Amino acid sequence: MVTRNVNFNPGPAALPLEVLKTVQQELLDFQGTGISILESSHRSKEFEAVNDQTIALVREVLGLGADYHVLFLGGGASTQFAMVPMNFVGDGQTAAYVDTGEFAFKAMKECQNIAKVHVAFSSKEEKYRRVPAMSEIKYPQDAAYLHICSNNTIEGTQFQEFPKTGKVPLIADVSSDIASRRVDYKQFALFYAGAQKNLGPAGITLVAMRDEFLATAKKGLPTIFSYKTHTDSKSLYNTPPVFGVYIMKLVLEWIKGKGGLAGIEKMNEAKKNLLYGAIDAAPDFYKGAADKACRSWMNVTMRLPTEELEAKFVSEAKKQGLLGLKGHRSVGGIRFSIYNAVSLEDIQKTVAFMAAFRKSA
Amino acid sequence: MVTRNVNFNPGPAALPLEVLKTVQQELLDFQGTGISILESSHRSKEFEAVNDQTIALVREVLGLGADYHVLFLGGGASTQFAMVPMNFVGDGQTAAYVDTGEFAFKAMKECQNIAKVHVAFSSKEEKYRRVPAMSEIKYPQDAAYLHICSNNTIEGTQFQEFPKTGKVPLIADVSSDIASRRVDYKQFALFYAGAQKNLGPAGITLVAMRDEFLATAKKGLPTIFSYKTHTDSKSLYNTPPVFGVYIMKLVLEWIKGKGGLAGIEKMNEAKKNLLYGAIDAAPDFYKGAADKACRSWMNVTMRLPTEELEAKFVSEAKKQGLLGLKGHRSVGGIRFSIYNAVSLEDIQKTVAFMAAFRKSA
Repeated sequence: MVTRNVNFNPGPAALPLEVLKTVQQELLDFQGTGISILESSHRSKEFEAVNDQTIALVREVLGLGADYHVLFLGGGASTQFAMVPMNFVGDGQTAAYVDTGEFAFKAMKECQNIAKVHVAFSSKEEKYRRVPAMSEIKYPQDAAYLHICSNNTIEGTQFQEFPKTGKVPLIADVSSDIASRRVDYKQFALFYAGAQKNLGPAGITLVAMRDEFLATAKKGLPTIFSYKTHTDSKSLYNTPPVFGVYIMKLVLEWIKGKGGLAGIEKMNEAKKNLLYGAIDAAPDFYKGAADKACRSWMNVTMRLPTEELEAKFVSEAKKQGLLGLKGHRSVGGIRFSIYNAVSLEDIQKTVAFMAAFRKSA
Repeated sequence: MVTRNVNFNPGPAALPLEVLKTVQQELLDFQGTGISILESSHRSKEFEAVNDQTIALVREVLGLGADYHVLFLGGGASTQFAMVPMNFVGDGQTAAYVDTGEFAFKAMKECQNIAKVHVAFSSKEEKYRRVPAMSEIKYPQDAAYLHICSNNTIEGTQFQEFPKTGKVPLIADVSSDIASRRVDYKQFALFYAGAQKNLGPAGITLVAMRDEFLATAKKGLPTIFSYKTHTDSKSLYNTPPVFGVYIMKLVLEWIKGKGGLAGIEKMNEAKKNLLYGAIDAAPDFYKGAADKACRSWMNVTMRLPTEELEAKFVSEAKKQGLLGLKGHRSVGGIRFSIYNAVSLEDIQKTVAFMAAFRKSA
């Protein structure tokens, strides 16, 4: 008998139970090949089909055309922090960054190791409690690109709209809110997402970019860090994270089965409304950490009156099978990461726990 | 009812059935946590224990001391082709490379994008049919390092001894023969291996380096490409390939259960003797592709009298459940990749097939 708990981990994070069951069932024999997908050659026709289907599903679910390259790379989003400026900041050029949280800041710092940075906005001094109004974002019109982080996992803030950057290419780290609601992904010249929140396991990063933007990439880079190497070979230049691609395919099929981004959005809107509602209904006890206008649908952060109560909240919740609620060490408090695979029923159970905990505290 | 075939794929490759069964059994609930290892935070105490145990197992199985850092990185060995020169070739220095096959050549080419290369030996003109005698390897005594590829997956050759490089650090890509027999891994200042042959699934690369060699690494690199970033955090600077680390742990435990490298060596020696014996017993029909003195224990390559017969051999073998025998597209012929998880019984079945095929041809 398997007991399954509610997984609020910020990433690696919850995966749909249906997906895990399929993985389990197919683990010793993938589609009648007599070997596991874990053992399958990336040059096999079975895996090439998985790869092609996953690329097609990314385009379909995110609404991208054939003019977008879709890559599955290793090394995490942190590798993209370096590859983006290596590929796209020309000699003498400046890249513009919006600094709205710890990961946005890391992306900007990595660019500083490689190229010149213009800080287009920063809420660092405000403890990253908010993302900017669009009018607050300032950057030179000849910037190589403007980089944003669409959702700030640690701080619990999220862009509710995106800057219209005109001729300046817009690049987004969408790791922690990809495929969680309807977004026009075609507004991004390039976007990337570590899979381990909404798309699959750790160890695979989705990168998508417009072909005409790719055409502006620098030449002469180390082969493996040039996007062109990977777009030329459908991510099969070297051995890709085969198992991660396979799981991403299953997750994207699961999203389709839920009605695509429209269906997922409806579910996620209900989840976040219920959870923020429970916080706001007890303002003397539960205090949302992020500015209301910037609240994330994916990472819900709050404080309790004391750190002792926060620690007790986390440990009592754990006893009820609600895992991973401790806020990031850099900010403290409580964080509910409610990615796509966390269900509305999970949130109902959680708000019931919150009411009981408050009463007993 | 699950049918399991014999998997001769060159990588991703066969995994021990016992390991796959453990993975399958634990897939929905990892060690009573109520969540899958695929969903586990890399900051959880459960995963940190897995990470620590895997590091300890690498040291134990490969005979490394505490003076070796052990890293689990994404991006494949091809990323190491770039990271090695980025970290270890100082300004004005030259790195020496031994060119014994397609991957050895790729490593060397990548270094040329980053630093100056000295070719210490090349068998390219001999179609990579051999690795050098130790006396043939020539390099300047102030080279940043000497790089070799211990086993050439495509060509089926393997170093049977290693150069004594004195003050010049020896670096090895050991992707396709790591942990396959007793080797003094302490002779390498740094070695690396894509896991997808002898250690686990695709998407995780083992990198080990001596602490005193690390101390010579360059500063000012992009954070994510600096080895120091990863050694400072036990590969937990960013999200590691969690599932790959977990499987590597299971595979290393399986190796220990087989008697460690001594036990594995005995098994692999019997396997390769049986298979090369079957080839050499029919020299008019089966022709070993590599020079006899350089034959690989892991990748056994041969030619048949015609390409038609080779194609028929591959397709007839597949009907018998012997998969993945087509040689690499760049060299043709037949290749048996007989990594650790391929059993002696699998080879017995194979030589019986070879005898029958020859008779019927």
